[in-house]
Amino acid sequence: MSQLHDTKQRLLNTAQDLFYARSYEDVGVQEICQQAGVKKGSFYHFFPSKRDLVIAMLDASWNQFRETILRDAFAIDIPPLKRIQRLLELQYRHHTETRDKTGHVFGCPFGNLAGEMSAQDEVIRQRLKDILSDFQVPIERTLSEAVAAGELAEIDTHTAAAAMVAYIEGLSLMAKTNNDPAVIRQLGPAILGLAAQPEKV
Amino acid sequence: MSQLHDTKQRLLNTAQDLFYARSYEDVGVQEICQQAGVKKGSFYHFFPSKRDLVIAMLDASWNQFRETILRDAFAIDIPPLKRIQRLLELQYRHHTETRDKTGHVFGCPFGNLAGEMSAQDEVIRQRLKDILSDFQVPIERTLSEAVAAGELAEIDTHTAAAAMVAYIEGLSLMAKTNNDPAVIRQLGPAILGLAAQPEKV
Repeated sequence: MSQLHDTKQRLLNTAQDLFYARSYEDVGVQEICQQAGVKKGSFYHFFPSKRDLVIAMLDASWNQFRETILRDAFAIDIPPLKRIQRLLELQYRHHTETRDKTGHVFGCPFGNLAGEMSAQDEVIRQRLKDILSDFQVPIERTLSEAVAAGELAEIDTHTAAAAMVAYIEGLSLMAKTNNDPAVIRQLGPAILGLAAQPEKV
Repeated sequence: MSQLHDTKQRLLNTAQDLFYARSYEDVGVQEICQQAGVKKGSFYHFFPSKRDLVIAMLDASWNQFRETILRDAFAIDIPPLKRIQRLLELQYRHHTETRDKTGHVFGCPFGNLAGEMSAQDEVIRQRLKDILSDFQVPIERTLSEAVAAGELAEIDTHTAAAAMVAYIEGLSLMAKTNNDPAVIRQLGPAILGLAAQPEKV
């Protein structure tokens, strides 16, 4: 049982590393098995298809993200709007570490797959849609707290949180395109402007 | 001469459609040749490699984008800040048309490739970086005009334009992930908030 669990975990970890550094289409089941030291038959015991592996991997990545960066950024002892800035600072640090180790900024593992796969695989698209929608939740809660604390005018916090997730995805993509985490520090502070009431032009 | 030009153009158009609907890795030279009705030898006469084709295709796509959506959005007879809103409205219309035709929102052709390829191919990354940096230019000019016209407070227009490009890329990605162009209409108006001075929190 424990060895089975280890094998599955090894496949998930390997898939996570390979897909994050490259792309869904570029990484095959054979390469994942080889790198994880797992036989192909074993792979298909755990995952009926590559898509099933990716769905399990996305769930694992999302749980990790929640338990590390999100938990840290949205700690209750930080004033609401500072949490959003802290989220970006933690992402900056993550990309800096990754680039120091690999030479590359890999961007957002969810955004990367969403860009590559959303028009090609409906199951993967739905899962990514749900994850990015879950990502809005702590941001929306924080904006509501900021409104309650008088840090922010009364706004539509749901729409503002969705705008912030879109912006964060855009920042990750631009940091990747520039291969430079500094993009997040330079452009990050503007995120709070997305919580302003849009002016009528 | 004209037939050679036609063949090259057909390869570029086919590549544009296939890569936009799927991904770099998922589309091979053979499929492009078949769909364009061009022999493989002919392909390699025009493009030494798939990467060379993609670079030429990116240049063609960028020129098209400039001569259609950008020209239309940044027409000089529209007040500065309205141009930025018009840019988003034109993107909304493009995604709506594409979804009506194909059932899918494909997002931004540049952002898609940037997400997939930036950590894998340095030549493609550099070209995409340059294109997305060129995309900032009309936005920055427009923000400067808005400042001069008193529509906007004195701001760092360079940084604000970079933030807006990141946001536009994020919106395209979220519209793709949700397979719903309406994302752009719902979240688009917040873009002008990125031109506000970031508040100190």
